[in-house]
Amino acid sequence: MTVPPIDPFHAIGISTIAHRMAAEGRDIIHMEFGQPSTGAPREAIAAAHRVLDSDAMGYWESMPLKARIARHYRDSYGVDIQPDQIILTCGASPAFVLALGCCFAPGARVALARPGYVAYRNALRALHLQPVEIACGPDERFQLTAAAVAALDPAPDGLIVASPANPTGTILPAEEMQAIVRVCRARGIRIVSDEIYHGLSYIDPARCILQDDPDALVVNSFSKYFSMAGWRLGWLVVPPALIDAARARMGNLFLTPPSLSQHAGLVAFDCRDELEGHVRTYRHNRDLMLDRLPAMGLHRIAPPDGAFYIYADIGHLTDDSLAFCTRMLADTGIATAPGLDFDPVEGHRFMRFSFAVSTDRVEDALARMAPWFDAAHARRP
Amino acid sequence: MTVPPIDPFHAIGISTIAHRMAAEGRDIIHMEFGQPSTGAPREAIAAAHRVLDSDAMGYWESMPLKARIARHYRDSYGVDIQPDQIILTCGASPAFVLALGCCFAPGARVALARPGYVAYRNALRALHLQPVEIACGPDERFQLTAAAVAALDPAPDGLIVASPANPTGTILPAEEMQAIVRVCRARGIRIVSDEIYHGLSYIDPARCILQDDPDALVVNSFSKYFSMAGWRLGWLVVPPALIDAARARMGNLFLTPPSLSQHAGLVAFDCRDELEGHVRTYRHNRDLMLDRLPAMGLHRIAPPDGAFYIYADIGHLTDDSLAFCTRMLADTGIATAPGLDFDPVEGHRFMRFSFAVSTDRVEDALARMAPWFDAAHARRP
Repeated sequence: MTVPPIDPFHAIGISTIAHRMAAEGRDIIHMEFGQPSTGAPREAIAAAHRVLDSDAMGYWESMPLKARIARHYRDSYGVDIQPDQIILTCGASPAFVLALGCCFAPGARVALARPGYVAYRNALRALHLQPVEIACGPDERFQLTAAAVAALDPAPDGLIVASPANPTGTILPAEEMQAIVRVCRARGIRIVSDEIYHGLSYIDPARCILQDDPDALVVNSFSKYFSMAGWRLGWLVVPPALIDAARARMGNLFLTPPSLSQHAGLVAFDCRDELEGHVRTYRHNRDLMLDRLPAMGLHRIAPPDGAFYIYADIGHLTDDSLAFCTRMLADTGIATAPGLDFDPVEGHRFMRFSFAVSTDRVEDALARMAPWFDAAHARRP
Repeated sequence: MTVPPIDPFHAIGISTIAHRMAAEGRDIIHMEFGQPSTGAPREAIAAAHRVLDSDAMGYWESMPLKARIARHYRDSYGVDIQPDQIILTCGASPAFVLALGCCFAPGARVALARPGYVAYRNALRALHLQPVEIACGPDERFQLTAAAVAALDPAPDGLIVASPANPTGTILPAEEMQAIVRVCRARGIRIVSDEIYHGLSYIDPARCILQDDPDALVVNSFSKYFSMAGWRLGWLVVPPALIDAARARMGNLFLTPPSLSQHAGLVAFDCRDELEGHVRTYRHNRDLMLDRLPAMGLHRIAPPDGAFYIYADIGHLTDDSLAFCTRMLADTGIATAPGLDFDPVEGHRFMRFSFAVSTDRVEDALARMAPWFDAAHARRP
């Protein structure tokens, strides 16, 4: 085996240009990354201040936080898990690395939807696993189907499920998720479910994979719903049979998550009023964009059921989404993510907007975009 | 390939018992982990308070911190590196995972000293690399030698260097390090140097591998000298040719390190007075222990040149270091790490003390240990 080359995130390149422009005095609207602009809940920040003054903060794993997360699974999904099934991590990314390491050896085949979060494909490659991409188009609202998983030949060793999904925000209907679980059980496919956008739903709440499959691994974090991206705190839920394997990997590969973040995260669980206010903002932003984008020619969109993204087909305007996003940034000051980050095959004709910014900024972006898209239409080949 | 089982840290088991005893009212002296009890520098904590109140803390990578670390290499070692050779990580552990992932593919052979930090061996196994252990005894002060690396047949793909070392605190002499670099260059062996205990030296300062080998990778963190273990902030230095590979892995496997820790870490670099005070405490603790342990029968020790550990031969008292440490904890309330964590072959007859506690606690520990070791001698077979 050789050390595989790993693709960069193109959105990071866009963001770097955007920050350089901001340093030069341009007013930038940051819609390129999936991160709330609101900061941690007030009470969580207050708790962090107290801990800073009272705790030397050594290596530490918060048992109360594990218990609180276990309670969350009972309260929100009716799923009974034990606190020691929860591995606290430095964000969802290392939780995903742990999950893959516990379940799969080099050469294993792991299926995933295309489009999908860029790091799934890249992390699989970095860990010497083979991504098996399932093309999911607008007819499936860019989501996996049981039929597509059943059609894979040979059966993969694993499947990554993401609902709500990145970059589209679409949620798997309950029946489809249950059907996927049945196919995976029958074919011996281990499910790793990325539930990082749970809590951010504009239709029914997203279903937890553990409601249907107690053998699945679940990745989640405080970065999205809890608005604590830079605190780097996430978790992995493992079935009882994998607890020892996951704990040993956590200790040896990552040690412990940040102490202060664990204290603050525990408090954040009880800040629902403030957090639900953010969800109302995202819902309003989503409605604004879905109302206004079609008039700009962006009507081929699967309306996002959750998360805070809109993935729009711009195939009528370009076959180079990176150049398109770069030009839009230069002309309008709006930073977005090119579809290439999410889909190496079709992504050249898509772009992703994150609406996890204030409503004012969304309105400003829409006002800048309307004339710019008119001009882009006029330029089209 | 299969998913390999990974050994747990035995010191974590000891620590869990110790915390249970503390909850039951016992006075515990924690010498089982290598973590300062002092907390982050005062000015770093003050900076964290300010950032908590002013920054929403999204995903972030601190360019000023990278520049400051690059300056540190110039100031401390006369080594010229560019800020973009530095990858900021969530502690030394993921920096080590990144380093291994950039350099080695599954099946590669990576040599390391035995005894050594347990996570080297375990992380290598978790990443499907083959640890090649080099037995290092008291004659070599438990350190690698150029002769031992030259004698490996076949040549390994990589070598882990650690100076000061864990669990012994011994430092490689400059000539020996230079000789090791020459052997590695001649044999095509890539060096990964763990310099996490730099700054904690009781003889001459430890040499940075980059003074001799610009192609080496260096792992370091804020957990030891800077007394910020629970802040989870570390870094990896890579040679220019590996920057893209390391950055892509960081982004896809880990994303970013904690934002608050990066702000605090930058300030910590200018808190030398407070931090050098900690080093004076450790030096005093070390001298106390080296003075008093021999009378308890613990005289087969390589006096630590750095770090904050004493690795003592207890072969005259036991052939089961885990049971020995467990009993000492139960009898005296002193938690220590069994040698098994560092050496699967000879570790049954060693134990490690961390003296990164207050001098009062060291004196208390020595007072409790003296009669206990008398009794242990009386019990010996």
